[in-house]
Amino acid sequence: VRLTQLSGALIGKGQHRHFMIKEIYEQPQVIGDTLNTMLNPASRTITLPDLPFDLASVKRVTIVACGTSYYAGSVAKYWIEKLARVPVEVEIASEFRYRQPVLVPGDMAVFISQSGETADTLAALRYCRDAGLHTVALVNVAESTIAREATTALLTQAGPEIGVASTKAFTTQLVVLACLAMGMARANNRLDAVEEARLSQALAEVPARIAEMLRGEDKIRQIAEDVAQARDVLYLGRGPCYPIALEGALKLKEVSYIHAEGYAAGELKHGPIALIDDHVPVVVLCPSDDLYDKTASNVQEVIARGAKVIFISDAEGLSKLAVKPMASFQMPPVDPFVAPILYAVPVQVLAYHVALARGTDVDQPRNLAKSVTVE
Amino acid sequence: VRLTQLSGALIGKGQHRHFMIKEIYEQPQVIGDTLNTMLNPASRTITLPDLPFDLASVKRVTIVACGTSYYAGSVAKYWIEKLARVPVEVEIASEFRYRQPVLVPGDMAVFISQSGETADTLAALRYCRDAGLHTVALVNVAESTIAREATTALLTQAGPEIGVASTKAFTTQLVVLACLAMGMARANNRLDAVEEARLSQALAEVPARIAEMLRGEDKIRQIAEDVAQARDVLYLGRGPCYPIALEGALKLKEVSYIHAEGYAAGELKHGPIALIDDHVPVVVLCPSDDLYDKTASNVQEVIARGAKVIFISDAEGLSKLAVKPMASFQMPPVDPFVAPILYAVPVQVLAYHVALARGTDVDQPRNLAKSVTVE
Repeated sequence: VRLTQLSGALIGKGQHRHFMIKEIYEQPQVIGDTLNTMLNPASRTITLPDLPFDLASVKRVTIVACGTSYYAGSVAKYWIEKLARVPVEVEIASEFRYRQPVLVPGDMAVFISQSGETADTLAALRYCRDAGLHTVALVNVAESTIAREATTALLTQAGPEIGVASTKAFTTQLVVLACLAMGMARANNRLDAVEEARLSQALAEVPARIAEMLRGEDKIRQIAEDVAQARDVLYLGRGPCYPIALEGALKLKEVSYIHAEGYAAGELKHGPIALIDDHVPVVVLCPSDDLYDKTASNVQEVIARGAKVIFISDAEGLSKLAVKPMASFQMPPVDPFVAPILYAVPVQVLAYHVALARGTDVDQPRNLAKSVTVE
Repeated sequence: VRLTQLSGALIGKGQHRHFMIKEIYEQPQVIGDTLNTMLNPASRTITLPDLPFDLASVKRVTIVACGTSYYAGSVAKYWIEKLARVPVEVEIASEFRYRQPVLVPGDMAVFISQSGETADTLAALRYCRDAGLHTVALVNVAESTIAREATTALLTQAGPEIGVASTKAFTTQLVVLACLAMGMARANNRLDAVEEARLSQALAEVPARIAEMLRGEDKIRQIAEDVAQARDVLYLGRGPCYPIALEGALKLKEVSYIHAEGYAAGELKHGPIALIDDHVPVVVLCPSDDLYDKTASNVQEVIARGAKVIFISDAEGLSKLAVKPMASFQMPPVDPFVAPILYAVPVQVLAYHVALARGTDVDQPRNLAKSVTVE
């Protein structure tokens, strides 16, 4: 019986040991596939699916999801508010559905779920539909209940995701949300052709930049050997990389069972910095953008308290850092717009290798189900 | 020199060993003092300070804060949306100020800070003021910069808070925010006299209920002996007790250096449940309200996975629970409206006794400052 299981699994995993790492490596491909449904690389414009409502009429966006999908929605809040200047509320489905949220008919609500079957998210969708909102599903399974019941479905082209810890579903969700933010900005006359071309170009380059980043896997594997000794790990980010810090911590928790936690870098001083001593690795996501200096200053604070910082940044960001981190990982330079998509990948790879070093069941972590269809 | 320090401190601490526990025990008094500024117990009505704008004209509320104050704001979101049906956004100050948030002139923004000097919160206040919002400070220091620069200041009557980990400042903030929610509901014709009397009565009883709860300190001290052995602790809550779970985890982290983390109970299945084994205490805040059954069902799930559940509920909630938790703590029965205020206290007491058992410096935890006046 064991042999059969193994051979079946091996076929599906190709050259990879686990579905998780296979799916991490599929990201350049499936992000490209997803972009192909919305982005014209020649004209450097984006085209959203036909919507039965006018995006310009949406005064407020509500995004509802659970777990990893919730963090994708949290990145989208930064994008949509910045580009389209429309306020966005991101809500945990199991909280949203029970608290009688204040909703305005005609506004848009987006429901994110890889499987399209997440019970709490589905209940939230029905609540919003009954309240007269335009409901948009963002799912990886076109025939799913959430896709069927929503006004419109946006699809990720991630293909089947077998690993319980979501990887390629997350980054393809981000790609669709980035296009949605651009579409809303254009509908509100806040995105001119030059800017649309620039952002489209940045998105179009994401698959190549991820492939480039993945060539550093061995460096991350070395870092993981240290992290695997830790009992606690903190992840820090600012702006759109703050939800990526949360997602990085969730990934590590899910597959390695190490207690990891993500924080907005500026919140550290308001309590969690008490946790830090010379046994606690702190993973910092710090692309070269207008928040770099603030995050770098937080890095100095935690290094002064003995923290083992793992600094993830581009060449410029690494060279500017005034203190010496325990380890660093160099990312390709990218437009800050797409940085959260790119920075999601090294924290996936780190979680994978820490789990390997600790010998946990990467593809089927204890206590977890792939799709949470009960409440 | 040591002797002088000690005697000075001992005077201020009265019969208590530490400022933290002294300030925990002051809560019935200072909550009463704070209520006295807004609540008329005879007429069972609330009176907010005169505001230079009409609360009914506020279409959206933005609450900005850091750390513990952010969790007070997160409870207020539940209250204001439920009672006044006005949408509320709660924002971490260090994120809010840098992300060019979408704001509408004439709306209201509330800035919560015990000291009234928190640098990121002050910067957010100035941003909102320049954007034409009505700014309301909620502070414990009337002469502070945030109080002076806001349109209006609401004051907690907590008295000086010396312990670095905030306790009485938090619960008095909650009390003011509860009155603000009632005031907004009344301004929007959503609070009739009968309901106002009922909620006022529930608030007026809070000091007595907290005093009653504190008589169980010794039971919590016994529970703390177990928790002090743990490396990781989870806190779970739903609805307005979800932010209390976050605050409980922050308290434990701050004073005991144990890695605690709070979660919305419904989110557990989406990842963090992988952390749970028979070494992980899970503190559950579960008053008898309309979310009780959902949370109790999550408790069954984690007990099935070996978690050591510490179940905090009232007599009715304790008797209804179908599984046996490792420990339980009985709360006085209260109106669900004020449950988050009351349930904030046992998690403070728990954090205090765990810290004592571990021998950490309760009143001056490592790495932390009382007031974060740098960015």
